[in-house]
Amino acid sequence: MRPSGRQPAEIRPLSIEAGFTRHAEGSCLIRMGDTHVLCTASVEPSVPRWIKGSGLGWVTAEYGMLPRATHTRGRREAAAGKQSGRTQEIQRLIGRALRAGTDRSALGERQITVDCDVLQADGGTRCASIAGGWVALRLAVNGLMASGELPHDPLGTPVTALSCGIYRGTPVADLDYPEDSEADVDGNFVLQGEDLIELQMSAEGKTFTRAELDALLDMALAGGRDLTQAQLAAVS
Amino acid sequence: MRPSGRQPAEIRPLSIEAGFTRHAEGSCLIRMGDTHVLCTASVEPSVPRWIKGSGLGWVTAEYGMLPRATHTRGRREAAAGKQSGRTQEIQRLIGRALRAGTDRSALGERQITVDCDVLQADGGTRCASIAGGWVALRLAVNGLMASGELPHDPLGTPVTALSCGIYRGTPVADLDYPEDSEADVDGNFVLQGEDLIELQMSAEGKTFTRAELDALLDMALAGGRDLTQAQLAAVS
Amino acid sequence: MRPSGRQPAEIRPLSIEAGFTRHAEGSCLIRMGDTHVLCTASVEPSVPRWIKGSGLGWVTAEYGMLPRATHTRGRREAAAGKQSGRTQEIQRLIGRALRAGTDRSALGERQITVDCDVLQADGGTRCASIAGGWVALRLAVNGLMASGELPHDPLGTPVTALSCGIYRGTPVADLDYPEDSEADVDGNFVLQGEDLIELQMSAEGKTFTRAELDALLDMALAGGRDLTQAQLAAVS
Amino acid sequence: MRPSGRQPAEIRPLSIEAGFTRHAEGSCLIRMGDTHVLCTASVEPSVPRWIKGSGLGWVTAEYGMLPRATHTRGRREAAAGKQSGRTQEIQRLIGRALRAGTDRSALGERQITVDCDVLQADGGTRCASIAGGWVALRLAVNGLMASGELPHDPLGTPVTALSCGIYRGTPVADLDYPEDSEADVDGNFVLQGEDLIELQMSAEGKTFTRAELDALLDMALAGGRDLTQAQLAAVS
Amino acid sequence: MRPSGRQPAEIRPLSIEAGFTRHAEGSCLIRMGDTHVLCTASVEPSVPRWIKGSGLGWVTAEYGMLPRATHTRGRREAAAGKQSGRTQEIQRLIGRALRAGTDRSALGERQITVDCDVLQADGGTRCASIAGGWVALRLAVNGLMASGELPHDPLGTPVTALSCGIYRGTPVADLDYPEDSEADVDGNFVLQGEDLIELQMSAEGKTFTRAELDALLDMALAGGRDLTQAQLAAVS
Amino acid sequence: MRPSGRQPAEIRPLSIEAGFTRHAEGSCLIRMGDTHVLCTASVEPSVPRWIKGSGLGWVTAEYGMLPRATHTRGRREAAAGKQSGRTQEIQRLIGRALRAGTDRSALGERQITVDCDVLQADGGTRCASIAGGWVALRLAVNGLMASGELPHDPLGTPVTALSCGIYRGTPVADLDYPEDSEADVDGNFVLQGEDLIELQMSAEGKTFTRAELDALLDMALAGGRDLTQAQLAAVS
Repeated sequence: MRPSGRQPAEIRPLSIEAGFTRHAEGSCLIRMGDTHVLCTASVEPSVPRWIKGSGLGWVTAEYGMLPRATHTRGRREAAAGKQSGRTQEIQRLIGRALRAGTDRSALGERQITVDCDVLQADGGTRCASIAGGWVALRLAVNGLMASGELPHDPLGTPVTALSCGIYRGTPVADLDYPEDSEADVDGNFVLQGEDLIELQMSAEGKTFTRAELDALLDMALAGGRDLTQAQLAAVS
Repeated sequence: MRPSGRQPAEIRPLSIEAGFTRHAEGSCLIRMGDTHVLCTASVEPSVPRWIKGSGLGWVTAEYGMLPRATHTRGRREAAAGKQSGRTQEIQRLIGRALRAGTDRSALGERQITVDCDVLQADGGTRCASIAGGWVALRLAVNGLMASGELPHDPLGTPVTALSCGIYRGTPVADLDYPEDSEADVDGNFVLQGEDLIELQMSAEGKTFTRAELDALLDMALAGGRDLTQAQLAAVS
Repeated sequence: MRPSGRQPAEIRPLSIEAGFTRHAEGSCLIRMGDTHVLCTASVEPSVPRWIKGSGLGWVTAEYGMLPRATHTRGRREAAAGKQSGRTQEIQRLIGRALRAGTDRSALGERQITVDCDVLQADGGTRCASIAGGWVALRLAVNGLMASGELPHDPLGTPVTALSCGIYRGTPVADLDYPEDSEADVDGNFVLQGEDLIELQMSAEGKTFTRAELDALLDMALAGGRDLTQAQLAAVS
Repeated sequence: MRPSGRQPAEIRPLSIEAGFTRHAEGSCLIRMGDTHVLCTASVEPSVPRWIKGSGLGWVTAEYGMLPRATHTRGRREAAAGKQSGRTQEIQRLIGRALRAGTDRSALGERQITVDCDVLQADGGTRCASIAGGWVALRLAVNGLMASGELPHDPLGTPVTALSCGIYRGTPVADLDYPEDSEADVDGNFVLQGEDLIELQMSAEGKTFTRAELDALLDMALAGGRDLTQAQLAAVS
Repeated sequence: MRPSGRQPAEIRPLSIEAGFTRHAEGSCLIRMGDTHVLCTASVEPSVPRWIKGSGLGWVTAEYGMLPRATHTRGRREAAAGKQSGRTQEIQRLIGRALRAGTDRSALGERQITVDCDVLQADGGTRCASIAGGWVALRLAVNGLMASGELPHDPLGTPVTALSCGIYRGTPVADLDYPEDSEADVDGNFVLQGEDLIELQMSAEGKTFTRAELDALLDMALAGGRDLTQAQLAAVS
Repeated sequence: MRPSGRQPAEIRPLSIEAGFTRHAEGSCLIRMGDTHVLCTASVEPSVPRWIKGSGLGWVTAEYGMLPRATHTRGRREAAAGKQSGRTQEIQRLIGRALRAGTDRSALGERQITVDCDVLQADGGTRCASIAGGWVALRLAVNGLMASGELPHDPLGTPVTALSCGIYRGTPVADLDYPEDSEADVDGNFVLQGEDLIELQMSAEGKTFTRAELDALLDMALAGGRDLTQAQLAAVS
């Protein structure tokens, strides 16, 4: 029995509010249950030095969590003077995920930075950031296409992500914090349609079997279809 | 003529959404026109070392601005590895303002940290932070009183704040970003009812007269009454 | 009764020793009672990137306090690895104050950096820094004019500053440390002749009235006249 | 055809020199082809604050790369003033992997820190660090058991790791740098016998299929058996 | 011929103004020609953790240079966020030198921190810091003895220091900046009477002979006698 | 009697393994007893900004110690966020020593960075770094000459270094850690043939005499001859 009363494969109520802030070229507030992430996409006309002249664009991401997004207040990273290893690991993941879903040649020599700031956390913030980040990216690209700056669409099927894990012996989708903090095995599945972009799976202080990997992957692909629908609805 | 078409003494549309996030003991999203600040108040059972044993409580504040709260994306302070001088100056101001409106003896030996994070900026973010921060503080204190932890209310009349300045020769209240970036004289007035808690007034590359100070102070006290009403409505 | 025996409006003995160090283009050691600040002005031929090509000059300031300038030794900021929020707030104030008194167009595209280092502290170090900083700036500008590099004088009436506050119920001028640490209301008034450049007034854990503001402003303008005379004498 | 002439499933020549340094409680120099990592295990009598009194031990890891371990000299992280996101991500992975293979209750309240320093790099440094790190850990635990400090062995089947990826359309095991820098899909498989501890798989700017995941997992499990034999031989 | 016209063995005019600042337990402004260093000694009742309970005291030093002590303005270390390698090397030297001249057992479990801040630099700042630092230390110890806190004097013959080098083929004492920046061989001699505490000698891009070492040591011992006299005079 | 049973002037067994790593232009693993240092020399085609256009080359060094090179694990400097004062002092010394033995005009406008990383420490790491660093440098220069990039050899007699000190009243050469931690007087002698490049001698909490300096210098010159032979053998 899940603490929330959900069925094993049931994901949380999902809402995506496009255009939540007005200055960014693309933005949304994504809510997966009690996990709320504000995502913005900022277009800049130049690319990092190492790809200048290549004709390719760049998509990158930064991630943050407001100090009191969590049950107890965490230290503000700007005050601590550095981003934690966890923060850096997550923002590198978001950036790789969104780049994998972008035709960098069609994007041309411009950079889009996706900022994902967690206003409230209840598990699964990195997956919500990827799903919401894609929406913000899509909206920013729509603007570039509408203004004629981009002749070809660099984006295709939405990039989405879902966490699945084994909670008290049962595979479950879209873990919330009470489940996540207790799960034996935990995986993050970054998907584009029926294919995978990234898979991270780990056991906390134990091992997992190939059969468990398969079960979670089945569940992730199913949930990913629902997420994809919601992303497409938000940007239509 | 103001860019927004407002009358000189007219403040922007104001909304305060109490309880915007669920983990913090008190929270609100304050919107002064297009300036939106998420304020949370976190209660901790212990005080800074230097007042331990004094019987007095402590109220402090931290301030941040999301990278794309502004027209062009700013560098994330956590990535830069430090808070800017501007950020520190603002959060010190917010902390002093809220402490001035708190009976630290009635609060007892506990600390309340008010986090003010700007989701969208259009001028006046420090004033919105003070006004919204007081609301979050009030809600957190309400909780402590409801649970019987606090026998006496440490808060009284709301602490509020308003920026007033001289824009193209005319004194105006509640400057938005287009006005703020062009104003000759700019002041921040932190108020509690008809009294002052803090006054910061400066001229950009010029001087100002005592008469100008008086005119802006009149305007600030008038606008402060409206803000105070909105704060009280939000917490009732 | 003031701890020093001074009259309420009486400022401390003031001395300004111009040319205290030999390498800087302008320098002085200003002593306001037991507060001693070494101020130097350094001329550099180029301006910050964001005003290049504008024809305007730049004046900026840095502030520091030697570890044992105070009653108990403070931590050296270079060893701590960063400047405190207080330091940054003060040096931003000094910079704004001196820029407000400078015709940046007449200065042309050069930068003058004013360093204010407190050798001994007894209250009012930011005001002494502004007054002494202006003297160093004036001497550096004199050099540029003497060498023919500057055809028009970018400086006019001295920029000066004085702290005034309410100590045990009485408005007093030029607070020393024992007064400052106990004052109910404390203000810093940056002046140029009879006009104001900046006004910062705050109450420690309480409020203040408009009448108190007026009384302190009267006192500041009076004291400012004496400071201005001393500055002019030091550079003549 | 692989640049090294190896068969697709063929791993590189492997050597593990136990006891490479004398001060550490356990140490080895592991060489997987031209990737050479010095691993040391340091036993400390106390655990991190957050598990004090729990009766559980802790295993953690730090990772570093000498500046000229690589083809072109990289900046020394100690000089840069921080560990890169990549470094932190790797050392968090090594720590999780070794903890998963340790019975923390049998270890008791002590901490073992495993340092993995890359003397020479040619791809697969994180996998070599995990395999060599386990050897160092095993040797340190052997010492604790020999001295009677540990009654029960907290370690079982070796924790090992192997990278597998898709290089020019073919699944290959144990990628060297020329392969790694060009691979379409790249995975790191942390194994304990036939079970998994962690799986990280990502595509560089594209997607991968479930069938590809399966093929690489087959290959990893096969290679893991050889690594396990070498680890056991080194500590016997 | 020396740029200053001095004889080879002639040291610069020396003045030591004891009690230059009032808060420190001991202080002086030492002037060796145009090198001016403000030295303060601060007594603290506790020692570093690693000698607690040993009955021994500790003497340490910190060194800094005001940004415009030099011909061209240097970056403020507090703003740069760290002390340079040169600064750390110098302050470690000063600390070792003063500790070597202190009976740490007679000092008892207290720490004296000597701050040496260069107000104006013209070569030889580390030597001036040691000589002036000893004077500040002596004055602080005098205070502890006068108040009865120290029964036995932990100090003896003054610790002093002098730079000597080979300038255009000639051994010279007490190099000023024009000499120092051009010298082939440069040494710092820390002395106590006729004995040595520390000797640092290096050649810039060449070698030096044992005979040259001997010649400079002769010169250093001679100059050290003059410095010692001046130190004793300043504290008498 | 020395703890190791060595004669006073006897240095430790010395081995230098040239070409220990393959990517660096020059490398060696030097072992002086239980002190093991990996030295690499990296050639870069450009020089620091301040000598651009001078026709001169640059040689610099960086030093590090692996966390468990020592008896008890030290904190990793990259994790601590900065290099210690000791590390910076040592790497500055290594750089000066190697530059002194290099004809920078013959080297031409290129930079060689020598990295010295201590794999295992037992006293004398800075001297081993200099001796091994010279070997790595020599090998890198050999490569430049073999490829015709360098017409004239910028190196001559090897730069070498040896620590000598007074241990329990007796002058001894090449101190190991047990001697070093207890020595009254300790010196580092950087030599080139019979001449000196740098001499650092200090007493720990006491003084030393000129006679003691002379005795240690005799010993250093003798030991230096053996080191020089070993360096020449390693590069032949």
